[in-house]
Parts: sequence; structure tokens; C-alpha cells
Amino acid sequence: MSSNRRNFLRNITLGTGAIVGGLPAWAKDQEAAEADNYNRHLNKLPAQFNMSGYAAPKLDKVRIGFVGLGMRGPGAVERMSFIEGVEIKALCDKFPDRVTKAQEILVKAGLPKAKEYTGENGWKAMAESNDLDLIYITTPWSLHTTIAVYAMNHGKHAASEVPAALTLDECWQLVETSEKTRKHCMMLENCCYDFFELLTLNMARNGIFGELVHTEGAYIHNLIDLNFSKKGYADMWRLKENGKRNGNLYPTHGLGPIAQVLNINRGDQMDHLVSMSSNDFSMGVHAKELAAKDDFYKPYTAYNYRGNMNTTIIRTIKGKTMMLQHDVSSTRPYSRIHLVSGTKGVAQKWPDPAKIAIGEDWASADEMKALEEKYTLPIVKHIGNIAKSVGGHGGMDFIMDWRLIDCLRNGLPLDQDVYDAALWSAIAPLSEASVKSRSKSIDIPDFTRGNWKSNKPVNLTLDGGGTTTIRNQKA
Amino acid sequence: MSSNRRNFLRNITLGTGAIVGGLPAWAKDQEAAEADNYNRHLNKLPAQFNMSGYAAPKLDKVRIGFVGLGMRGPGAVERMSFIEGVEIKALCDKFPDRVTKAQEILVKAGLPKAKEYTGENGWKAMAESNDLDLIYITTPWSLHTTIAVYAMNHGKHAASEVPAALTLDECWQLVETSEKTRKHCMMLENCCYDFFELLTLNMARNGIFGELVHTEGAYIHNLIDLNFSKKGYADMWRLKENGKRNGNLYPTHGLGPIAQVLNINRGDQMDHLVSMSSNDFSMGVHAKELAAKDDFYKPYTAYNYRGNMNTTIIRTIKGKTMMLQHDVSSTRPYSRIHLVSGTKGVAQKWPDPAKIAIGEDWASADEMKALEEKYTLPIVKHIGNIAKSVGGHGGMDFIMDWRLIDCLRNGLPLDQDVYDAALWSAIAPLSEASVKSRSKSIDIPDFTRGNWKSNKPVNLTLDGGGTTTIRNQKA
Repeated sequence: MSSNRRNFLRNITLGTGAIVGGLPAWAKDQEAAEADNYNRHLNKLPAQFNMSGYAAPKLDKVRIGFVGLGMRGPGAVERMSFIEGVEIKALCDKFPDRVTKAQEILVKAGLPKAKEYTGENGWKAMAESNDLDLIYITTPWSLHTTIAVYAMNHGKHAASEVPAALTLDECWQLVETSEKTRKHCMMLENCCYDFFELLTLNMARNGIFGELVHTEGAYIHNLIDLNFSKKGYADMWRLKENGKRNGNLYPTHGLGPIAQVLNINRGDQMDHLVSMSSNDFSMGVHAKELAAKDDFYKPYTAYNYRGNMNTTIIRTIKGKTMMLQHDVSSTRPYSRIHLVSGTKGVAQKWPDPAKIAIGEDWASADEMKALEEKYTLPIVKHIGNIAKSVGGHGGMDFIMDWRLIDCLRNGLPLDQDVYDAALWSAIAPLSEASVKSRSKSIDIPDFTRGNWKSNKPVNLTLDGGGTTTIRNQKA
Repeated sequence: MSSNRRNFLRNITLGTGAIVGGLPAWAKDQEAAEADNYNRHLNKLPAQFNMSGYAAPKLDKVRIGFVGLGMRGPGAVERMSFIEGVEIKALCDKFPDRVTKAQEILVKAGLPKAKEYTGENGWKAMAESNDLDLIYITTPWSLHTTIAVYAMNHGKHAASEVPAALTLDECWQLVETSEKTRKHCMMLENCCYDFFELLTLNMARNGIFGELVHTEGAYIHNLIDLNFSKKGYADMWRLKENGKRNGNLYPTHGLGPIAQVLNINRGDQMDHLVSMSSNDFSMGVHAKELAAKDDFYKPYTAYNYRGNMNTTIIRTIKGKTMMLQHDVSSTRPYSRIHLVSGTKGVAQKWPDPAKIAIGEDWASADEMKALEEKYTLPIVKHIGNIAKSVGGHGGMDFIMDWRLIDCLRNGLPLDQDVYDAALWSAIAPLSEASVKSRSKSIDIPDFTRGNWKSNKPVNLTLDGGGTTTIRNQKA
């Protein structure tokens, strides 16, 4: 059995890690060494089944249950309410009032009310039900893997908000469960569907940048007020994550698009990374300022907050590099960078406006327009304008949801599979391990167990799909 | 004696490095471990004298000898010909025709011809002469330290093009010689004098960005044609550097300004770094393309060229981070990035145009103008317009030369001392050591030997100086 096989390996390797691997037994490196060994051994197990490129049986209707109706859930319910072939059958949250409120979205859309699940274990009952095809997970981070694994083990596809997993152990749980059950496990990395990211993906595929050399992504977004807000995340869970972990806690928005452009898991693979954090110069200070006026914040002065800026560099087996940054507490304009650099040209989305250079000069407005006309992907031509009118981070959320449903309904492989979910999420704990041991270089597990060599790149066509229509669509 | 003391330490530490430091004896880490130990032991020696903030005796006239009249030398001679109080007394190059040609610059400026030194050892004779105060070094990289040390040992100040040194051993030679002789050793890091860099330095000093968190610098400049050109660097020396070393070979242009903004060597100090290179996707291919048409290039197909992109991250003792990049073979627009990020705001020079955000939105054109009016430094107000008219990378070269001469004539400390020259140059060999050992984290030597804790930040005023005038200056 998958879970036993994993636990067995973890136990034998963790116990003797420092000896087996010949790694130095310095106390401060112990944890990193154990993580290294654990990965190294799990890497060696063959995949049970290759979920990359896997097409699940077609679904005429996709019956969805949503779990987590706080921050990201209601928007997801609303977007899905526009898509034909979707049946929103279940709504789940720990807090009943959130479920009640989400029902209003369905009523407003003229759709039947969904079944309600509430309380601490509502999600279990929902995942056990026999009238759902897909569990759409928008809970706090700590529940993503637990719910996704439970959903797959109960015959449902799982789609999880980012990050799909918090630890390497969780990453392997997702991989082994998806392979065992042959259920999709997609991480809802919406930024892969943003317009400029899709444009540069298509340009890269067409060789416009030459051989790709180096890429960059980031999550630079000042969340200090949101994270300290009493009206924000339940029980201040997101602030606490920033108070007990130090690394790139939220790598996937910047990473997803550049991993796709480099065909990671599908022709190339990440090999190792190094990660470095600055000190914290903002969150600790802010906690003290708030606590001086409000006792509620007193406990939050005791946390050892993550550094403002984390910089991580990844090297791939084919010798490409990826630079990732994470800063959610400095005052700066928003940026995911999105830089794609090749032997013949470069693209960079942030700082605004997005720029492309084929050569040593940035393209003019007219040249940019010509490139957009030539390299805009079929999916954007097909659904981009509707997506912009629906909204959700400028439309990318809707493109993602539509594509997920269209693939499930047409029996197509998903653009983001369980290996992407695991790998992109794994960068967080791997960066933490590196930061903890003075930026030591850390092996990155190959969740595909060698299948990256033959896996096909993400499909950029709508071939075999594109049939899913939009409710109330204006002609 | 300084040199004996250094050699003695190197011998005892290199011989037993792996044992003394308790480092793992893995073959691939051996070189890095030895470098680590060497640094660690030299770090422990006290400074002989503190050259930071050191004011050499005033010189009414600064009598200069130039060595290296190929690429950068003639421009330097021309710029210096505009500065009152400078006497260009000697010109030196291996090749006599270059010296003859440089004399024309003096004739054109209405100045007396200089004494000529030529041949392989011309620079020695020049440095030994008794009618010079300053040796200005614009030779190939490999001669910078040798000539600077010889010049100081013969009673001359030394100013060297970047990088001032190629190895850690050379860095320590500069430091120990400057301390022993009490002669200045300035690296001519012209980018420290560029307009936006000086503006952001002054803004940071005034706390406009809050507490500084993270900085970035780069040298992204497609030099592939220049490096492969037969008419470029003598004996293809610069191409060869790229063919036998892998790391950030040219860190100082991006690093100088951000080191000054973080008060490195003067209130904070670099602690360690990690460095990662991509593979080479351009130079090896280009060598083969050229060799197919021209036998001259056949030997250059055998080199193991450095990767296109190197990314290096440095952590300071006070917990700030610095990200450096180096790419001279990909086709991209020029960039030194120059990013300064603090708790309250950020500045970024590349991609054009330079931007500043105090808050989460980039400043408008009017706001930028107001910031420039408020924070432009005295040196720029005093000499900036003249510098623009003289030229040299848009004026920054001339500001640098004028400031060097004005400090020497008024007995002021130089803005860039020998510790800056050594540290900024050291990033190249340290990055190479990290790249060689799978991005292992590498200790950065403290060339100030603890004096960074009390050294004063760079002087941003013209106090005590500003008296040096310009020849033929229009009123």
C-alpha cells in the first residue's frame, strides 16, 4: 500500500540519514540532511502510474463541491456559476454563515441551491458523498493536502488553491495518492493563465527567445495590513505561517508560469536550490506597534517573523536557472517579475508595463501589438474577452476554471498535474531547509521519478476540447 | 613583513585546512574549504592601519602616470586633461603606437607631452620614477593588482580599473600593501557616480526608503561580439577569462552602488554568499560557428565557457540581502538593475526608465522631478552638467575622476578605499568557488578586520573640497 510504503521508507531513512548519505553531522545541518535523504530515497521508488498526460474518463457534467468559503471560495463559486456543464452540488465551510452566504451566489445566477456541509469535519462528509466529481479546495493552507488526499481516496478529482502542500511529506502524499487512485490533483495556479504569461509561453515554444537560459518569478505583495487584520484570515492563520516559518512561503504564483516555459516535469527537471532570507524589519516592529494599543496583538509580539525578502535560485538538470523572490512585508509595488531570458531575447512583465526584447532593444508599442497578434494562444482568443468581463484577477482565474472544466468534460489531460502541484509547492519547505542551514544547497525531489524525460510539454492548443460554453453569454 | 606574514598564514592554513576547520573532506568541496579556511585565518589578523577615512597629505598638483592605453586608457587621459591641478606626466603601454596616439590627446588639449614608457616592463620603470603621485591603471584585468601593489610600494597612490583583483590572494595583497604604505588604492568603480545611483544613495541616507532590506545589481551586457572580435582585447584576453572561469566575473558595476547604499565596510559587512550559474548556451556555439569559417577561432572551440547567467546572493551581518547578476552572452537589453528596497519604498533603475516608489505606486514624472530636486547631491549640482558635456558613460566617469583629484588635492579621504576595492573584487573568485561546489555557501572575508563596525559611511558632502576647477570651462 502506498501510504505504508512511504512511511516505511521515511522511517528507515530518517533514522539513519546522516550515516547513509555520508553527510556532515553538524547539528545545524541535521534537518536539511534528513530532508535530503528522505527525498533521495523516495526519488528512487518507481512511479506507480504516470499521471502526466493522463486523461480521465470524460464527464458530461462536472459536479463540484466547494470547501472553504472565506477568502477565495465565494469568487470561485461565482466564476463556476457561469460555466455550462458545471453543477455546483455542494458547499462546505466550518462556519455555517459562510455557506448560507455562498448559496446567494447560486440563487442570483438562477441555479439550484447546493447541499450544505458545515463544522470541523464537514469536508469529510462532502468528500464521502456519491454525487460529486470534483472537490474544489479553498481552505487555509494547512488543510489543502489533507482534503485533496481524502477526496482522491473517495473517488473525486481534487483542485486545490496554492500551495497544494506545505511539507515534502504532503507533496509525496499527493503524488502517491493521485497515482494510486488515478484521480487528478490540480493546483489552482491561476497565474499560469494570465495573459502575458501565456503569450511568453507561446513565444518561447516557438523559439522566439532562442534557447532559454534563465527565468524569474516572484510574489512581492505588501500583505502586512491584511495579515495583521482581525477581519482577515480566520484565527490569524496566515500571520502565524509568517511567524513560524522562514523561506519562500508562497512560491507558486511566480514559479508556475516559468516552470511551464522551461518544460519542468516535461523535458527538464529541477535539480537543486539555494535560498536566502533577509532579517525581518517590518512584521516584528508592526506587531509591537499594534500591541502597544491593543492587547489582542500581545501574543503576536513573541513570533520570530520570516525575513522581509527571500531570494531562491533553482538550477535545472539541463542547466537553466530560475530566480524566485518572496516579500510580503516591505512597502513596494506589486510584482511577480515574470522574466524569461533566452539566447535571443527576453520578456519581463514587472515593473509595468510588460516588455519584450528580441535583440537588445525593447519592442515599441507597435512591435508589441504585432507580437501579441501573432502569438496569442487559442485559449485566450477563445475565452479571453469573456474572462476579462467575468473578472477574477483580471480574467486569469476564469480562464483557469473554464479550462479545468473543459478538460474534464472532454477527457483531456489537465495543464497542471499532480507533479506540478507537488514540485511547485515543495519549493516552500525546501527553501526553509536551505535558509535554516545558511543557504546550503538542497536537492529537489523528482516527483515524476524519471518520467520528466519523456513527459510531453503542456498542450497549448484547444484540440479535442473548447466545447464548453458560457451561461448568459452575450452573442 | 606584510608579504611574509601573508604567505606564512596561507601555507599553514591551506595545508591543513580541511582538518582545522572541521569541514567535510569531499573532493569537490576541497577547494572551497581551503578558500574558506584561508579567509577565516586572514580575517583574524588585526589591520596594520585603518585606511578607511584615511586622509593622505594634500597634493597641490596631482602628477599622474597612466598605464594601459588600449580600451579604457585614452578616455581617462582625455577626461583628466580637463581637470586643473592634474599633470599628466607619464604614459605607458606595452605597445609604443598606443603611447604615441595618446600623446595626441595632450597636444590637442594644449598640454605638454608626457614621458613615454613602453614594452613588457614599462610600467615598472614608470612606477619607480620619482615625479609621480598617482598611477592610473587601465590594463587587462590580470595586471591590475600587480601594478597597484608595485605602485604603492614605490610611494604612489594607485587607481585601478575594475576589478582591482582577480583572486583572494590579490585582494589581501592590496589591503596589506595599502595599510603598510598608507597609500590610497582606489578601484575606479565609475557606476558609483552615476546620477540615479547617487540620488538613491542620498535618499537612502535620508531614510526615505525606511530601513533598507534588499538590494540588487547586475552586469547584463551582451559582449559576445566584442569578446570574440580580433580587433577587441589584445590576445583575446577577455574571451579567455570567460573560457576558464565560471561565476560572476564582473560584479563591481552593480555591486559598488548598492554596497555604498548599505554602508558595507562602514557600518555593516558582508557575511556569506551563494552563487549559481546556468550552462553556457551561447559562447561555445558561437566559437564553433566562427571556427567553421576561420581557423583563427579553432582553439576557442576547446574552452569550457562560463554559463550565460550567474546569480549570486549575499547576506550581510545586519541581515540585509544583495542579489547580483552577470550575463555577457545572452541577447538582452543592457541592465545593472540597481534596485534598492526598504521597508517604506523602492527604487529601480533598469529596465528604463528609472523608477521610485515611496509606497505601493511608482512615482509620477512630476513626483520624480520633485525627488530629484530635493535629493540631488552637492557633487552632482557642482559638476554634473560639466560631466555630461565631457562624457564618459554619460558623465559618471568624469564625476569620478574629478572627485578623485579633488580629494587628493584637498587631503580628503577617497569615497572608495582599498577595502571596497578588495571586497567588491572578491565577489568574483568567491562566486567561482560557490559555483564549483554546487552553490555551497561561502564565507566572505572581512578585509577591514572588524573596523567596519566603527568606520564612517561615505561622505556625501563636498565639505573641505570642491575647489578643483575645470580647464576651458564655459562660464
